[in-house]
Amino acid sequence: MSVDIVYRPIGILHTPFQDLAGMPIQPTGEASAPGTAEIFPSFADGLKDLEGFSHLILLYHLHQVPRTDLRVVPFLGSEARGVFATRAPTRPNPIGLSVVRLQAIEDNVLHLANVDILDGTPLLDIKPYVPAFDRPKRARAGWLEAAQREVRTRQSDDRFRSRGG
Amino acid sequence: MSVDIVYRPIGILHTPFQDLAGMPIQPTGEASAPGTAEIFPSFADGLKDLEGFSHLILLYHLHQVPRTDLRVVPFLGSEARGVFATRAPTRPNPIGLSVVRLQAIEDNVLHLANVDILDGTPLLDIKPYVPAFDRPKRARAGWLEAAQREVRTRQSDDRFRSRGG
Repeated sequence: MSVDIVYRPIGILHTPFQDLAGMPIQPTGEASAPGTAEIFPSFADGLKDLEGFSHLILLYHLHQVPRTDLRVVPFLGSEARGVFATRAPTRPNPIGLSVVRLQAIEDNVLHLANVDILDGTPLLDIKPYVPAFDRPKRARAGWLEAAQREVRTRQSDDRFRSRGG
Repeated sequence: MSVDIVYRPIGILHTPFQDLAGMPIQPTGEASAPGTAEIFPSFADGLKDLEGFSHLILLYHLHQVPRTDLRVVPFLGSEARGVFATRAPTRPNPIGLSVVRLQAIEDNVLHLANVDILDGTPLLDIKPYVPAFDRPKRARAGWLEAAQREVRTRQSDDRFRSRGG
C-alpha cells in the first residue's frame, strides 16, 4: 500500500546559501545567517498572532537533494548511519526541519535569524515553537551525544549534492 | 507558481486513538499513550543507530483532517488565531509533528511513549531529537505563553473533525 501525498508550497525561503556545500549544518551553527520567508499572499491570513513567538519550526521541501540513501555518512562523524538516525537530507521524503528565530514580520514576509536553509527552498509549513510541547526533559542524543556540540563550527561539503554514488 | 510535491508513507502509526475527539492535544498531555510505528520493510535499513536516542521527531500526514482553515479557534483558548500561530491540524499542508519518547526497537517496529496521534496515520519521516539543534534557549511562546501549561490536562473535541464550517 503506497498512497501519494501531495503538498504545495506556502511560500519560499530567501537565504544567502546558493550551494549545498559550505552551508551551516544546523541553525545553531556559527555560519547560520539571517534570511526571509516570503509567504504567498493567499496564505498570509494564517500569519496572524505569529509575531509573539520568538522561535518557529519551519518544515520545507529539500528540493535540491537528488537521491535517497538509507545509510549515510553524516557531517558529524565518519561512520555510516541509518538515515533516520541522522539529519542528513537524503531521506525517503526529503522534508527539512529547522528551529529558527523570528525577528520581525512585515506583511507576508518573515524576517528570520539562524537560518541554515538553501536559497529558493519551498516552504511547506510554519509551526510556533512551544517549549511545553517541543522540549523533552533529559533527552539523550545517541551517537550524536558527544558530536552535537561540534555543530557550531562545522560546515557542509558537497556529499549530498551530486547524483549517484 | 505552485508545484506539486509528492511524498509517500514510510510506515504507519498504531495508537489507541480512533477518533479526532477525546485525544490528547499534545504529546505532553496526561492522556498521551504508548503506540508503535511500523516502518515498511523497504525502509527498515534506515533505522540503524536510532536506538540510542531517547526522543524522536515524527512527521506524519494528518490524513483525517478534512479542510484547511487559515483562522482557527485552538483547543487552548477562545480567540481565532492564524493557523501558523497554532498547532491545529487544519493547515494548508497537513503535516503533523510530535516529539515522542522511543522505548525500544524490534526489527521494523518502534515502540513509543507519549503518543498523541490518530491510529492509522501515515508516517512521513523520523528525525532524531538532538538538544543542540532543537532546543533554543529562552523561547517565548506568544499567545500560548500562559496557556501552554494547560496542555497536560486538556483533551480534544470534534472541532477539527467535521467538514465545512
